[in-house]
Amino acid sequence: MEDHMPSVTAADTRSLSNIGVVGLAVMGSNLARNLASREGNVVAVYNRTYARTQQLLDEHGDLGFLGAESIDDFVASLARPRTAIVMVQAGAGTDAVIEQLAERFEPGDIIVDGGNANFHDTIRRERELRELGINFVGTGISGGEEGALRGPSIMPGGSAEAWETLGPIFRSIAAVAQGEPCVTHVGTDGAGHFVKMVHNGIEYADMQLIAEAYDLLRRVGGLSVPDLVEVFRSWNEGDLESYLIEIAAEVLSQIDAESGQPLVDMIVDEAGSKGTGVWTVQNAVGLGIPVSGIGEAVFARAVSSKLEQRAAVRRTARRRPERPPMSEEFVNDVRAALYVSKVVAYAQGFDLIVAGAAEFGWDIDLGALAKIWRAGCIIRARFLNRIVDAYATDRGLTSLLADPYFANAVGAGEQAWRRIVATAATAGVPAPGFSSALAYFDSLVSERLPTSLIQGQRDFFGAHTYRRVDKDGVFHTLWSEDRREIPTEPSTH
Amino acid sequence: MEDHMPSVTAADTRSLSNIGVVGLAVMGSNLARNLASREGNVVAVYNRTYARTQQLLDEHGDLGFLGAESIDDFVASLARPRTAIVMVQAGAGTDAVIEQLAERFEPGDIIVDGGNANFHDTIRRERELRELGINFVGTGISGGEEGALRGPSIMPGGSAEAWETLGPIFRSIAAVAQGEPCVTHVGTDGAGHFVKMVHNGIEYADMQLIAEAYDLLRRVGGLSVPDLVEVFRSWNEGDLESYLIEIAAEVLSQIDAESGQPLVDMIVDEAGSKGTGVWTVQNAVGLGIPVSGIGEAVFARAVSSKLEQRAAVRRTARRRPERPPMSEEFVNDVRAALYVSKVVAYAQGFDLIVAGAAEFGWDIDLGALAKIWRAGCIIRARFLNRIVDAYATDRGLTSLLADPYFANAVGAGEQAWRRIVATAATAGVPAPGFSSALAYFDSLVSERLPTSLIQGQRDFFGAHTYRRVDKDGVFHTLWSEDRREIPTEPSTH
Repeated sequence: MEDHMPSVTAADTRSLSNIGVVGLAVMGSNLARNLASREGNVVAVYNRTYARTQQLLDEHGDLGFLGAESIDDFVASLARPRTAIVMVQAGAGTDAVIEQLAERFEPGDIIVDGGNANFHDTIRRERELRELGINFVGTGISGGEEGALRGPSIMPGGSAEAWETLGPIFRSIAAVAQGEPCVTHVGTDGAGHFVKMVHNGIEYADMQLIAEAYDLLRRVGGLSVPDLVEVFRSWNEGDLESYLIEIAAEVLSQIDAESGQPLVDMIVDEAGSKGTGVWTVQNAVGLGIPVSGIGEAVFARAVSSKLEQRAAVRRTARRRPERPPMSEEFVNDVRAALYVSKVVAYAQGFDLIVAGAAEFGWDIDLGALAKIWRAGCIIRARFLNRIVDAYATDRGLTSLLADPYFANAVGAGEQAWRRIVATAATAGVPAPGFSSALAYFDSLVSERLPTSLIQGQRDFFGAHTYRRVDKDGVFHTLWSEDRREIPTEPSTH
Repeated sequence: MEDHMPSVTAADTRSLSNIGVVGLAVMGSNLARNLASREGNVVAVYNRTYARTQQLLDEHGDLGFLGAESIDDFVASLARPRTAIVMVQAGAGTDAVIEQLAERFEPGDIIVDGGNANFHDTIRRERELRELGINFVGTGISGGEEGALRGPSIMPGGSAEAWETLGPIFRSIAAVAQGEPCVTHVGTDGAGHFVKMVHNGIEYADMQLIAEAYDLLRRVGGLSVPDLVEVFRSWNEGDLESYLIEIAAEVLSQIDAESGQPLVDMIVDEAGSKGTGVWTVQNAVGLGIPVSGIGEAVFARAVSSKLEQRAAVRRTARRRPERPPMSEEFVNDVRAALYVSKVVAYAQGFDLIVAGAAEFGWDIDLGALAKIWRAGCIIRARFLNRIVDAYATDRGLTSLLADPYFANAVGAGEQAWRRIVATAATAGVPAPGFSSALAYFDSLVSERLPTSLIQGQRDFFGAHTYRRVDKDGVFHTLWSEDRREIPTEPSTH
């Protein structure tokens, strides 16, 4: 590294900034402003095109930025250990900036990737940079543009050594929940981006459940959009209090200026998605973790975007859903079903984190994670306090659903949940999130599952073998011979 | 390649075999026996340890195998274009054998991989071997050990040139449905292994639906296992006629010799899985195709294997499902729900094939595919004739559910389907396959989906933009400013 250092010795001794930001699009600019506004930080900023840097300096020069015109100047303006947060597009753009920095950084310096990187890339980059002695810290940052500016939830991976330097800086800018900054050292290398991925997966599930509640209240319950605003606002005073419920009410309250109609009715009902929901499902199925809530949410967005197919099937279908019998408690039933389904989505998401930690060798404190999601991030919710409590009581909790508080909460909502799933099926209003959550719960609590029949079939057609309930060992029935059962080795094909 | 050829000129001129098989475990041996039993084939066989080859020659020498002791002998015994089917463990084992063959083969020769390879590997191998002039043909082979021996369903990818040679050989050994051999040239490079993957994904969904039907009939309907055998046998006389229904009855009819109980009750209800179900879901979400039936099936197997978690949640849960009102037509309702859910699973699977073909540049004839799945393979079913008809009527069918026959079938079963999903929710019997299929159908046919609210939320917290129902363009509301709507570019972050 030394021999690549530019000859900017004047700046080198100056060494004024304790932190730098590369990439000044909205997220990067806002994060830089957040950093610069906190006591003790002097922030170097660099952007490939200088105009953006100039704009930041023009608009927020009072924050004392050190604006660099070249990557060399930028690096020269950083105190040791040099610490730079990369806020550029995930993928090749990130790799290019990392390479530029790595050519100029020295052992002990720190490169932070604050984008939504795939954690597999983060693991690779950390390994490559570690060989050069450089600390690479893949960091999940949630909260969108507002969060970046005012205080996000921050999920750094990387080494303990890097955390020594980064901890105080991140704590200075993070959101605060009950007096505690929403940042923790999640685990080594890709752990931060892994949990950010799962955070986003849970966000998908949560949004899908809220959408189903809205749809049922409107199409089955007959509530008007203004009624719905009131319902969501009142829900936001109770157990369901959360940012996503809050902004559901905000979106529903928005009247389209042109048509005078609720804006929600003017928006094409085709939900887009970025990579993280997809990654969550791909990794979960690879790790054998049933994240059906996230899966159904990803599928639901996919269905919604198939406009041509929807039109074709709608034209052909002979469909006659019935008006279901409706409880007087319908709105409350929907609320209960939403809450309980949300517990399931979180239980599944936390299971995925446990599995990821085991697979990739991370020591992740689930309680600490629940704490840092209580403010700043998109899934922030009162509910997370209950998760914090659950892991405080039992750090090795097998499932959130096995925690006494949540077991009681699910028990309290169970009848309503069943009524709502049954009602949705009868009325023809899709509720894949509610119903898959209920099916997951009923699967967990069933004494016996019909998967024994599946194992029997697999043994029949593929000699995949099975275990027995009454003794150890692995067995195979000679189905195409005399149907004797023989002890055998587990199938490998 | 020429310069790598061993000096076995004597054998070289002999050139007796039109086809060779490498790897003589059960699938390979059975396939070799199948090949050798057909008029016109002379089959060379080779296995890394010769003992297996010797065993095949000892037991089935009458089939006229040419048993090679070395890979050089094996290659020398093949007529040009040399054609070898590799039947070894997927992954590194396959790569090793391919390398051995490639070093000895000449341009125009053909290497077939008949294992359950990941189609991405197949695409890579095809590209690498094409550079050497060798035809590489990744081929899905379904039907298990019995199918390999008596006639499988065969799904070859690879080049048209290779298909010239392979077509007659494959046709000679394939299963036959209504006079037609169950093999077609699916498409180039990885197309064969891709559709085999989807075939297996559909198999997962089909087995899950059958398991749910069994569970509901037993736990809600109160049917005994012998009753269930009768039910499945009678279903196998109608629309549901299929191999998987047939063997469900076979497995259910099996009495455990030790306990005298139905074997199904002695099998641990923990379903295993191999890679293909997982791959199907991973690729589907990556391609944006909602294969919820396959997803829920993969998730259901995953839940079943979490024995510790199931026990913990069962201990804590306060669960009070109710005995639901049951229709006198309960058994028929379950049958209808199973049939209609199965239509959905196939519709989703075929959508995935369409998406894969578009993504990877394959020209796949869906009707031809349905034809070759009618016999030999695990998902063979009378039902596939209806799919053949659907694509014969409209090769570009947008969705199986838009075909008039299936639209009518779904319409006929719809009320029963709704009753069964509602009943399962009320009774606490998990039916994730039935209910996700219904939710998918109801999503497709809904005039408006609540995903408009999701789009509004995404625009609120992430400026992800939305489209409007009343005009073209992409829009963003300035949520944190004066809430004006502005035209904008689609979000890229």
